Amino acid sequence: MPSTPSVSSSITARLHVEARPTAVSELTSAIEQTGGIVTALDVTASGHERLTVDVTCATSGEEHAAQIVAALRALPGVDVERVSDRTFLMHLGGKLSIESKVPLRNRDDLSMAYTPGVARVCEAIAARPDDARRLTIKRNTIAVVTDGSAVLGLGDIGPLAALPVMEGKAALFKRFAGIDAFPLALDTQDVDEIVETVVRVAPVFAGINLEDISAPRCFEVERRLRERLDIPVFHDDQHGTAIVVTAALTNALKVVGKRIEDVRVVLSGAGAAGTAVLKLLLAAGVRDVVVADVDGIVHTGRALASAQLRWIAEHTNPRGVTGALRPALAGADVFIGVSAPNIITGEDVASMAADAIVFAMANPRPEIDPAEAARHAAVVGTGRSDVANQINNVLAFPGVFRGLLDARSHVITDDMLLAAAKALASVVTDEELNPAYIIPSVFHPDVAPTVATAVAQVAGAEQPRADTGAVAVVPVPGL
Amino acid sequence: MPSTPSVSSSITARLHVEARPTAVSELTSAIEQTGGIVTALDVTASGHERLTVDVTCATSGEEHAAQIVAALRALPGVDVERVSDRTFLMHLGGKLSIESKVPLRNRDDLSMAYTPGVARVCEAIAARPDDARRLTIKRNTIAVVTDGSAVLGLGDIGPLAALPVMEGKAALFKRFAGIDAFPLALDTQDVDEIVETVVRVAPVFAGINLEDISAPRCFEVERRLRERLDIPVFHDDQHGTAIVVTAALTNALKVVGKRIEDVRVVLSGAGAAGTAVLKLLLAAGVRDVVVADVDGIVHTGRALASAQLRWIAEHTNPRGVTGALRPALAGADVFIGVSAPNIITGEDVASMAADAIVFAMANPRPEIDPAEAARHAAVVGTGRSDVANQINNVLAFPGVFRGLLDARSHVITDDMLLAAAKALASVVTDEELNPAYIIPSVFHPDVAPTVATAVAQVAGAEQPRADTGAVAVVPVPGL
Repeated sequence: MPSTPSVSSSITARLHVEARPTAVSELTSAIEQTGGIVTALDVTASGHERLTVDVTCATSGEEHAAQIVAALRALPGVDVERVSDRTFLMHLGGKLSIESKVPLRNRDDLSMAYTPGVARVCEAIAARPDDARRLTIKRNTIAVVTDGSAVLGLGDIGPLAALPVMEGKAALFKRFAGIDAFPLALDTQDVDEIVETVVRVAPVFAGINLEDISAPRCFEVERRLRERLDIPVFHDDQHGTAIVVTAALTNALKVVGKRIEDVRVVLSGAGAAGTAVLKLLLAAGVRDVVVADVDGIVHTGRALASAQLRWIAEHTNPRGVTGALRPALAGADVFIGVSAPNIITGEDVASMAADAIVFAMANPRPEIDPAEAARHAAVVGTGRSDVANQINNVLAFPGVFRGLLDARSHVITDDMLLAAAKALASVVTDEELNPAYIIPSVFHPDVAPTVATAVAQVAGAEQPRADTGAVAVVPVPGL
Repeated sequence: MPSTPSVSSSITARLHVEARPTAVSELTSAIEQTGGIVTALDVTASGHERLTVDVTCATSGEEHAAQIVAALRALPGVDVERVSDRTFLMHLGGKLSIESKVPLRNRDDLSMAYTPGVARVCEAIAARPDDARRLTIKRNTIAVVTDGSAVLGLGDIGPLAALPVMEGKAALFKRFAGIDAFPLALDTQDVDEIVETVVRVAPVFAGINLEDISAPRCFEVERRLRERLDIPVFHDDQHGTAIVVTAALTNALKVVGKRIEDVRVVLSGAGAAGTAVLKLLLAAGVRDVVVADVDGIVHTGRALASAQLRWIAEHTNPRGVTGALRPALAGADVFIGVSAPNIITGEDVASMAADAIVFAMANPRPEIDPAEAARHAAVVGTGRSDVANQINNVLAFPGVFRGLLDARSHVITDDMLLAAAKALASVVTDEELNPAYIIPSVFHPDVAPTVATAVAQVAGAEQPRADTGAVAVVPVPGL
C-alpha cells in the first residue's frame, strides 16, 4: 500500500524531451497521474529540437518511484538519462565534516597550533586538568553513541548501518544548539564492552548521548556509565521522549482544564521510552497511571520477568487494574502510546473520560490513526510531522545538552529533565495554546535556548565566563 | 638559559600610554632591550592625553615574558592593562569544530537528513556494508588515537593534557589533505584495552593514526590493530618519521653523489622512531647500518632485552661493530639521530667520511648543534623549523592518509611507505636540489598530492569514482 508521497522519498530524473509546446505539461501530468508530486522542474539545456529537463518529485517509496520512471519512459519523445534519489544524494560522503578553527597559513601559525607552542598548552592542562574545558574541544563536544541494536524502527542493523542516523543526530545538535557532536557506532553489543569503551574514549567529550540501544541493556549501560564518568550521560530514546511527552501533556492539560494530579493516565509501552516517560510523569505529579505491555496491564499480581517491570508494578496502578490495555482506557483522561501500531480503536478513545488526551507515538504508524482518535479526543499528538502536535525529541536533546555544557555539569538529574519539560512547555504562550498547538515547532527559535537556560539553572550554573581576548589567560609568572 | 624568542611564545600586552612623541618608540625599545622581538603594534584608541596600544612580541618563554612586562611597567606614564598569551588565546575552546554538511532549513530537509528518509540509507548500508564508504563520513574520516603516554618531549602526561596535540594533528590533516580527523585520547595505557577500544570504535573510521604512544607498547598496539581491523593503521611517530628521513636521505645522497647501497649509516636511537627508520632504510636499499641505543652499538654479542633489539641485531651491523656510538662514526657516511640532545660533537662529525650527511632530529635540542655539524658535514638536517632542512612528519602523514582513503585501502604496507618516501623526495626537482634544500617546505602545495598519488597507486587504486549528481545512486528497482 503506497502511503502519501514524501519529500524524503524524492527522485530527480534527467530527461531529454522533444521541444514542443506541451512537452513539460506532458511530463508533469504523467507524474501526477501516478500519484507523484512534482516539487521542482528545471530546463537545464534547450535546443531547437530537444530540451533537457531535471524534474524532481516526491514519491511514496521505491516501487512508486519505479512506476513514475516507467510512466516517463512511456511518453513519446522522452528519454530518461538518469534518475537519482535526493535523500541518497544528500548522504553522499556523509553529513558531517571536521574543520580546523585555527588558521594554518604559515610557520608561525604552525608553531602555535602545533609544535613547539602546543607543548605549553599541554603542560597547563597537565597541571590543571579542568583547563581542558577551556583549552580543548572538550568544552563543546559530545559523543553520539550507539551499538546499532535498535535503530529507528529497523531494529538490530549493526553499527555501520546505524551511522547515517548518528550523523543526522550530530547535525541536529549543531543546527539547533551549536554543539560539536561526533558519532560513535560501536562494534559490540555487550554491555560490559560498551561501558568500557565509552569510559576509555570519554576524555575528549563533555557529555554522552546514548542512542538506539535496545532495552533492557540500555538501562544497564546508562546506569553504569553514570557511575563511572564525571560527564552527563543521556539516553535520548528514554529521556528525550520523556521530556517532550511531559511538556506536551502539561500543555494539553491546560487546554482541557485538568490538573496533572487528578488525571487518570494509561501508558502503553514498558520499554526504554515507556519507562522513562513513566518516571518523569510521576516526578511531574501524575498519581494515577496504569502501564500496559504486550502481556496487558502491569500489576503486582502478574509474573514479572524484569526488575524494571517489578519497579513499574510497585510504583503505578493505585486502583489495582488488571487485564488488557483496551478495557483499561474506559474513563481514562490520558492515553500515551510508545508501543506498537494500531492497537486501540476509536471506540476505545470514545470510552475515555470527556476531553480525553491521546498521544499515539508508535513510529511510523501510531497506536491509532490520529484522524480517528481526533473524532473522540480533545487533544491528539503523534510522532509524525504530517499532522498537528508532533512529539519530536529534537525539541529536547539540543537544549538539554546546551544547558549541560554551559553549566559544565558533571551529571544529569531528574530535576534537570523536569525543568527541561517545563521550559519546553513554556515556549507555547497562553495566547498560542490550542488543541492543535500544544508543543512548539522544532524550528521555533526559542526552544533550545529556553530548555538550555532551565537545565543550566538547575545544574547550578555560574555565570558563564567570557573566554575572550579581554581576559588574561596567561600562565606568565607574576601577572 | 633563554633560547631564541619564538612566535610560539608570543604575548600581547594592552597598554595605556601618555600621548607624547616618543611614546611608541619607548615601548619598542624597552621590549627590544630585554631581547623580545616586537611583531605587531596597534594603537587601538587615541585621545589628547592617552593612547591605548596593543603590542605583540615574541619571547623566549614565560620567564622572559614576565621580564618584558616588568620592563613595560617600569616605563614612566605606561599602565599595563592586561597581558595575553597568543598561543593560549588560539587554543581557547579548542581547535576543531564539527559541522553539518547538509542544510537543515525546514521539515523537508529534516525528513531527508534524519527520519524518516534516513531509514532508507540505513537499509542500503545494512544490505551492502561497503556503501558506508559512500553514504557516511567513513569515506573521509580517521581517528587520531593516543594514550597520552609519550606526548612530544613531555612524556606521560595523560589523555586530557595530550588533547591539544591530537587536535593540532587533526587540524593539520584537514589543512594539508582535506581529511576529517577526530582526536581520541584514551583513558587507559593498557595494551589490551587500547586495542579493544580502537577495534570497537572503528566502524566510523577509514583509518587509524596512532600518536605519541610510548615504545615498546606502540609496536604491540599497532601489530594487533593491523591484525584485527580492515582499515589501515599508521603510527606516525614511527612511519611518518621513517618516510621523511628516507626521503631526505635520498635527496642528500644525490647532493653528495653517493649511492644508498654503498653508504655506511650510523643510527642513534632504537625506540619507535629509530626502529621504523631502520626498517624503511633497509627496504630502500641501505646495506651497512649500525644502530646505537643508550647502551651503545646494538650487536648480537650484547645482552638484548627485547625482541625488537634482537631483531635489530640480526638485521644490521654487517661489520660487527661494538662499543659506543661516537667511535662508530669514524668513516661513516651518514649519521641519523632520533635519540637525545648533545650526544655527538663536531670532532665526531669530522671523523666521518668526506661529504658526510648528518640528520640530528632529537627535539627540541638535536644530537649536535646544527651549526657545529655544518662545519664538518656536507648536508645537515634537523627537526627544527629555524634552520634549513626541517625533517618534519607533516610532510608525510597527510598525503599518506589521503592516498589510503582515495584508494579505499584496507591496509598499509611497507611498499606504500617506501613509495611515499620516494614521492616526497621527488617533489624537490634537480634544479632546486642543494645542500640547504633536500626536502620541500611543509607548505609546498605539491607535497601531499604527490605522496597521496604514490600511496594510492601502490594500494591498487582504481580510478576514483565521481560521486556527483551525474551518477545514478538510486536503489530504485528496475533502474
